[in-house]
Amino acid sequence: MHLTRATLRPDLAILTMSGFLDARPRVGYFYSGKTANQLMGEHIRNLHVKDYKSVPVVVTEATSVYDAICTMFLEDVGTIFVIKKEGYLIGVVSRKDLLQTAMGKQDLSSIPVGVVMSRMPNLITCTPEDTLHYAAQQMMRHQVDSLPVVRPFQGDDRHLEVIGRISKTTLAKAFVELGQHISV
Amino acid sequence: MHLTRATLRPDLAILTMSGFLDARPRVGYFYSGKTANQLMGEHIRNLHVKDYKSVPVVVTEATSVYDAICTMFLEDVGTIFVIKKEGYLIGVVSRKDLLQTAMGKQDLSSIPVGVVMSRMPNLITCTPEDTLHYAAQQMMRHQVDSLPVVRPFQGDDRHLEVIGRISKTTLAKAFVELGQHISV
Repeated sequence: MHLTRATLRPDLAILTMSGFLDARPRVGYFYSGKTANQLMGEHIRNLHVKDYKSVPVVVTEATSVYDAICTMFLEDVGTIFVIKKEGYLIGVVSRKDLLQTAMGKQDLSSIPVGVVMSRMPNLITCTPEDTLHYAAQQMMRHQVDSLPVVRPFQGDDRHLEVIGRISKTTLAKAFVELGQHISV
Repeated sequence: MHLTRATLRPDLAILTMSGFLDARPRVGYFYSGKTANQLMGEHIRNLHVKDYKSVPVVVTEATSVYDAICTMFLEDVGTIFVIKKEGYLIGVVSRKDLLQTAMGKQDLSSIPVGVVMSRMPNLITCTPEDTLHYAAQQMMRHQVDSLPVVRPFQGDDRHLEVIGRISKTTLAKAFVELGQHISV
């Protein structure tokens, strides 16, 4: 078995393709220097928000806190995005924000969600082109459970349109999926 | 470069150790049949709950819903575990359960958390020896945000002692960590 010329052996070709081995003429196969951990890191950093985002749940700013809580239960999400009636993103409201409001003595059906939400420009967002890993880092860094996936609203980047949602549940699903690759 | 005898070449030894190549006397190196995805799956399935669990937040069943919500905010967790005063696990209460209760017209400081919690034996738990991947699958399957990590209470398995917590945040952290392995 001579490997001095890089005629691809079928069984080693897959390792060459996955980046573990390099094959060079008159050199043969050699180790690329990347460990399994490094390749796993690269694989994970190649997953993109656009392939994992789920459908966003939105309400307008005039919606009452009571109705927002009902929407949250009906849609079974932990975060709701708040938009202007024109359609662009103005806020995010979490289960935590709503719980805090619900503890007060106020009448929940008379408080608009716009009063208790976190507002632009203090929102953490991501785009479809971002990596899932970047979105995960943003969630951890800013301690939020969910990010709106956005793009410029009607092509104008003064406002943002919400086109998806990435949550810790999204990441948990990706984690389960990555762990499901098994040897045959 | 002859590889007919399995004298380990230093640059290929790492691939042998990581399971990609097998080295056999008089055969040389050959591909083990495992792809990078399969090895990544194996790597993920080798992470254990005991190495990732965080500190559990517990209250006794007589604690009021009001105080449970305060504890949740102070400790910044999404799920609280409820124990008997003797110390064993009897229930789990989530931000969602508390929000549902807070929407009612009742006085939150007069309702004990034991009334609104999910109860044993309907709780999803995990042990320190379970894999993180198993815990993640359980969370997804049963649609819960957090699992108590348990062991038999005082060595007797009729009751469970809570010794940790695994949440979707734990999984998000693991995901960020796995994606951080970079090539040098």
